[in-house]
Amino acid sequence: MKAFVYVSLKRSVLDPQGKTIQGALNKMGYKGLQDVRQGKYFEIILDGGLSRNDAEAEIGKIAREVLTNPVIEEFRYSLEE
Amino acid sequence: MKAFVYVSLKRSVLDPQGKTIQGALNKMGYKGLQDVRQGKYFEIILDGGLSRNDAEAEIGKIAREVLTNPVIEEFRYSLEE
Repeated sequence: MKAFVYVSLKRSVLDPQGKTIQGALNKMGYKGLQDVRQGKYFEIILDGGLSRNDAEAEIGKIAREVLTNPVIEEFRYSLEE
Repeated sequence: MKAFVYVSLKRSVLDPQGKTIQGALNKMGYKGLQDVRQGKYFEIILDGGLSRNDAEAEIGKIAREVLTNPVIEEFRYSLEE
Protein backbone atom coordinates (compact mmCIF):
# COMPACT_ATOMS: atom_id res chain seq x y z
CA MET A 1 0.00 0.00 0.00
CA LYS A 2 1.21 3.47 -0.84
CA ALA A 3 0.57 6.62 1.16
CA PHE A 4 1.04 10.22 0.14
CA VAL A 5 1.44 12.82 2.87
CA TYR A 6 1.31 16.49 1.93
CA VAL A 7 2.66 19.02 4.41
CA SER A 8 2.16 22.73 3.85
CA LEU A 9 2.47 25.93 5.82
CA LYS A 10 -0.75 27.09 7.44
CA ARG A 11 -2.58 29.83 5.54
CA SER A 12 -1.82 32.27 8.35
CA VAL A 13 1.93 31.71 8.06
CA LEU A 14 3.96 33.76 5.60
CA ASP A 15 5.65 31.65 2.92
CA PRO A 16 8.71 33.60 1.71
CA GLN A 17 9.90 30.72 -0.47
CA GLY A 18 6.60 30.67 -2.33
CA LYS A 19 6.68 34.45 -2.71
CA THR A 20 10.20 34.27 -4.14
CA ILE A 21 9.11 31.68 -6.72
CA GLN A 22 6.09 33.79 -7.59
CA GLY A 23 8.30 36.86 -8.07
CA ALA A 24 10.75 34.90 -10.24
CA LEU A 25 7.95 33.47 -12.41
CA ASN A 26 6.49 36.92 -12.81
CA LYS A 27 9.81 38.31 -13.99
CA MET A 28 10.11 35.42 -16.44
CA GLY A 29 6.86 36.46 -18.05
CA TYR A 30 4.38 34.12 -16.41
CA LYS A 31 1.60 36.53 -15.59
CA GLY A 32 -1.69 35.69 -14.02
CA LEU A 33 -0.37 33.92 -10.94
CA GLN A 34 -2.19 35.11 -7.86
CA ASP A 35 -0.31 33.09 -5.29
CA VAL A 36 2.36 30.40 -5.05
CA ARG A 37 2.98 28.33 -1.94
CA GLN A 38 5.50 25.59 -1.50
CA GLY A 39 5.17 22.48 0.63
CA LYS A 40 6.71 19.06 1.07
CA TYR A 41 5.33 15.71 0.20
CA PHE A 42 6.22 12.21 1.26
CA GLU A 43 5.61 8.97 -0.55
CA ILE A 44 5.55 6.08 1.90
CA ILE A 45 5.31 2.46 0.83
CA LEU A 46 3.84 0.21 3.50
CA ASP A 47 4.14 -3.52 3.95
CA GLY A 48 1.31 -5.40 2.31
CA GLY A 49 0.20 -6.98 5.58
CA LEU A 50 -1.59 -3.91 6.99
CA SER A 51 -5.35 -3.47 6.67
CA ARG A 52 -6.55 -0.18 5.25
CA ASN A 53 -7.69 1.04 8.67
CA ASP A 54 -4.39 0.17 10.32
CA ALA A 55 -2.48 1.81 7.52
CA GLU A 56 -4.59 4.95 7.84
CA ALA A 57 -4.01 5.09 11.60
CA GLU A 58 -0.27 4.53 11.16
CA ILE A 59 0.12 7.16 8.47
CA GLY A 60 -2.01 9.68 10.39
CA LYS A 61 0.20 9.20 13.43
CA ILE A 62 3.43 9.52 11.45
CA ALA A 63 2.15 12.65 9.69
CA ARG A 64 0.96 14.27 12.91
CA GLU A 65 3.86 13.39 15.16
CA VAL A 66 6.87 13.31 12.89
CA LEU A 67 6.43 14.93 9.51
CA THR A 68 4.49 18.03 10.55
CA ASN A 69 5.37 20.90 12.85
CA PRO A 70 1.89 21.61 14.27
CA VAL A 71 2.72 25.20 15.18
CA ILE A 72 3.15 26.37 11.61
CA GLU A 73 2.21 23.47 9.35
CA GLU A 74 -0.80 21.39 8.44
CA PHE A 75 -1.05 18.10 6.55
CA ARG A 76 -3.35 15.93 4.51
CA TYR A 77 -2.79 12.43 3.27
CA SER A 78 -4.21 9.88 0.89
CA LEU A 79 -3.82 6.12 0.53
CA GLU A 80 -3.58 4.07 -2.61
CA GLU A 81 -3.65 0.28 -3.01
CA MET B 1 -8.29 28.11 -10.54
CA LYS B 2 -5.86 26.22 -8.38
CA ALA B 3 -3.01 24.00 -9.56
CA PHE B 4 -0.97 21.49 -7.61
CA VAL B 5 2.45 20.55 -8.94
CA TYR B 6 4.28 17.60 -7.39
CA VAL B 7 8.00 17.25 -8.01
CA SER B 8 9.85 14.12 -6.95
CA LEU B 9 13.20 12.51 -7.59
CA LYS B 10 13.21 9.96 -10.39
CA ARG B 11 12.99 6.36 -9.21
CA SER B 12 16.54 5.76 -10.44
CA VAL B 13 17.95 8.56 -8.24
CA LEU B 14 18.96 7.83 -4.67
CA ASP B 15 16.95 9.79 -2.10
CA PRO B 16 19.13 10.11 1.02
CA GLN B 17 16.62 12.44 2.72
CA GLY B 18 13.87 9.86 2.36
CA LYS B 19 16.18 7.11 3.62
CA THR B 20 17.04 9.21 6.68
CA ILE B 21 13.37 9.75 7.50
CA GLN B 22 12.73 6.03 7.03
CA GLY B 23 15.59 5.16 9.39
CA ALA B 24 14.35 7.65 12.00
CA LEU B 25 10.78 6.31 11.82
CA ASN B 26 12.08 2.79 12.17
CA LYS B 27 14.03 3.70 15.29
CA MET B 28 10.92 5.37 16.70
CA GLY B 29 9.04 2.10 16.42
CA TYR B 30 7.15 2.55 13.16
CA LYS B 31 7.79 -0.79 11.54
CA GLY B 32 6.43 -1.99 8.26
CA LEU B 33 7.65 0.91 6.12
CA GLN B 34 9.21 -0.39 2.94
CA ASP B 35 10.26 2.90 1.46
CA VAL B 36 10.01 6.63 2.10
CA ARG B 37 10.70 9.26 -0.52
CA GLN B 38 10.44 12.99 -0.15
CA GLY B 39 9.43 15.50 -2.76
CA LYS B 40 8.22 19.07 -3.09
CA TYR B 41 4.85 20.38 -3.97
CA PHE B 42 3.60 23.72 -5.16
CA GLU B 43 0.17 25.22 -4.85
CA ILE B 44 -0.40 27.83 -7.52
CA ILE B 45 -3.49 30.02 -7.67
CA LEU B 46 -4.21 31.30 -11.15
CA ASP B 47 -6.24 34.28 -12.25
CA GLY B 48 -9.82 33.39 -12.99
CA GLY B 49 -9.61 34.57 -16.60
CA LEU B 50 -7.75 31.54 -17.99
CA SER B 51 -9.55 28.68 -19.70
CA ARG B 52 -8.80 25.18 -18.44
CA ASN B 53 -6.69 24.39 -21.50
CA ASP B 54 -4.66 27.58 -21.19
CA ALA B 55 -4.17 26.97 -17.49
CA GLU B 56 -3.00 23.44 -18.15
CA ALA B 57 -0.53 24.62 -20.77
CA GLU B 58 0.76 27.37 -18.49
CA ILE B 59 1.19 25.09 -15.49
CA GLY B 60 2.81 22.35 -17.58
CA LYS B 61 5.31 24.88 -18.90
CA ILE B 62 6.08 26.28 -15.44
CA ALA B 63 6.50 22.78 -14.01
CA ARG B 64 8.75 21.62 -16.84
CA GLU B 65 10.90 24.71 -17.24
CA VAL B 66 11.13 26.17 -13.78
CA LEU B 67 10.07 23.90 -10.95
CA THR B 68 11.69 20.66 -12.10
CA ASN B 69 15.29 19.72 -12.75
CA PRO B 70 14.75 17.29 -15.64
CA VAL B 71 18.03 15.48 -15.05
CA ILE B 72 17.03 14.04 -11.70
CA GLU B 73 13.40 14.97 -11.13
CA GLU B 74 9.98 14.27 -12.57
CA PHE B 75 6.66 16.01 -12.00
CA ARG B 76 2.94 15.59 -12.18
CA TYR B 77 0.23 18.17 -11.73
CA SER B 78 -3.48 18.49 -11.23
CA LEU B 79 -5.93 21.34 -11.65
CA GLU B 80 -8.90 22.20 -9.50
CA GLU B 81 -11.66 24.75 -10.17
